[in-house]
Amino acid sequence: MNLPSQVHITEVGPRDGLQNEKQQVPATVKVELCERLLAAGVDHFEATSFVSPKWVPQMADAAEVMAALPRPQGVIVSVLTPNLKGFESALAAGADEVVIFGAASEAFSQRNINCSIAESIERFRPVADAAKANGLRLRAALSTAFGCPYQGDVPVSAVVDGVERLRDLGCDEIGIADTIGVGTPGQVQRVMEAAARVYPIAQLSGHFHDTYGQALANILACLQAGVARFDSSIAGLGGCPYAKGATGNVATEDVVYMLHGLGIRTGLDLDRLVDAGQWISGFLGRKSLSRAGNALAARRQREQSEAEASA
Amino acid sequence: MNLPSQVHITEVGPRDGLQNEKQQVPATVKVELCERLLAAGVDHFEATSFVSPKWVPQMADAAEVMAALPRPQGVIVSVLTPNLKGFESALAAGADEVVIFGAASEAFSQRNINCSIAESIERFRPVADAAKANGLRLRAALSTAFGCPYQGDVPVSAVVDGVERLRDLGCDEIGIADTIGVGTPGQVQRVMEAAARVYPIAQLSGHFHDTYGQALANILACLQAGVARFDSSIAGLGGCPYAKGATGNVATEDVVYMLHGLGIRTGLDLDRLVDAGQWISGFLGRKSLSRAGNALAARRQREQSEAEASA
Repeated sequence: MNLPSQVHITEVGPRDGLQNEKQQVPATVKVELCERLLAAGVDHFEATSFVSPKWVPQMADAAEVMAALPRPQGVIVSVLTPNLKGFESALAAGADEVVIFGAASEAFSQRNINCSIAESIERFRPVADAAKANGLRLRAALSTAFGCPYQGDVPVSAVVDGVERLRDLGCDEIGIADTIGVGTPGQVQRVMEAAARVYPIAQLSGHFHDTYGQALANILACLQAGVARFDSSIAGLGGCPYAKGATGNVATEDVVYMLHGLGIRTGLDLDRLVDAGQWISGFLGRKSLSRAGNALAARRQREQSEAEASA
Repeated sequence: MNLPSQVHITEVGPRDGLQNEKQQVPATVKVELCERLLAAGVDHFEATSFVSPKWVPQMADAAEVMAALPRPQGVIVSVLTPNLKGFESALAAGADEVVIFGAASEAFSQRNINCSIAESIERFRPVADAAKANGLRLRAALSTAFGCPYQGDVPVSAVVDGVERLRDLGCDEIGIADTIGVGTPGQVQRVMEAAARVYPIAQLSGHFHDTYGQALANILACLQAGVARFDSSIAGLGGCPYAKGATGNVATEDVVYMLHGLGIRTGLDLDRLVDAGQWISGFLGRKSLSRAGNALAARRQREQSEAEASA
């Protein structure tokens, strides 16, 4: 297999993950989660969203979280900012990166943000311009790139079109997202290769959901296509299988377990990631959604009991 | 991607799956599960084990299940037979195939069946000879091929050695099994390629557990190495994450979803597999462990509600 020697992981648990958890999480817990992720070597993470608290009550404490976060050098703290108001708050809070969300599916754009894809790009333009003017990194997510809950199939050409529009906004990174987790590896490889023909592959990332169990196979297919950046969510946060509208973010521990097994460097400490994942799952009062996380935690417990028994 | 155009799935849910479920399942339910699998196009499945009911109470009804099974032409009904006594019962019950279990890890063989790998091969020899003499298909599983709970790493040479021994017993198929689910795709590809140097790849199969979430990525790696036979378990039976000693069989629905997405023929009807998986999970009183199964069932329910609402 021809694979990248190093992969960059953007941890999305504290934002994309927690935002999709029903239970309100206090700012102190969010901050401790970020601290634990930093201790595991995470150097790029989504901390919060500057959005209306009416729409997303879980993120109402955005400024409080940002103010309390440790800010080690070289770590990119990323926030979601759908509009200029959000951007101003993010700037004031000292974000390193802002994220905007486009869609590859016209039907999804209409149903989700009440405008066409073309109109959504125009809405993002002031945010993009402000980010560039203020020296912030600008990342875009292109949702429903592998299938849409409303229109079904999404043609590759629509993804390429979306990547070109976001590229022209000046995005430093574009994440191709399987919002509903329906993609399979061959399709993923074709889409990534097509996207890489109009945008530098080093700035392309993959964002996969494990709703259909396909996320790791899709990431493997991406690696083989030369993609070396992925989003993942500690403990699979945001993907509660018992919640309606479960998003099913792929779990960071599962991704890192595979990458390290493939001999790919991530700069992350899997043991500490497992700790962080078990800790936040404990807070949420449920089992972690990371299979590797649970298996490694159980193995550790078994080894500990055996050591104690033989002591 | 260079992939096989067709893949053969051996369904192991009724045996390997149910055997690892705590709850006793009546023979009538086992038979109905097999009927539902047959209706979904399954043409090769593990029906039961002829083993001591003291050791495996779940399989005490082996003869009853075999007698009640429908036997459509061309379908291979497979049973586990660890010894000659089991073989005689399997033969009397009309099994098409018997399965024997070897290990790639010396420590696992000692701990699990109280003898060395070499001794275990000698124990299997009478079963193998009897199978050949009676015209039954002989399949072997080589467990702990990617890691062992007792010795940790298992060298590739040990797998090759195991494959050679089982080949020399006359096995028609050898399944390389990741018993504890620790393997990752690069390792899997190296092991499969090494095994294929001493045994025909068309007769090699992969048996993966999703304990660390790696099963589908490992199957993708196998496909790329030319392996086109896999075991899988409907609804992920046998892999209850809440049970101690969870085995984590990869779910048939997840595998088939990926294969069909890759344009690979399986001869299976995914919708009917989902039905069978949801049905047996309902009987067991728990959510299916198949992510694709649950997602497809939820999607179907949503579409039905929408159709009713608009009617």
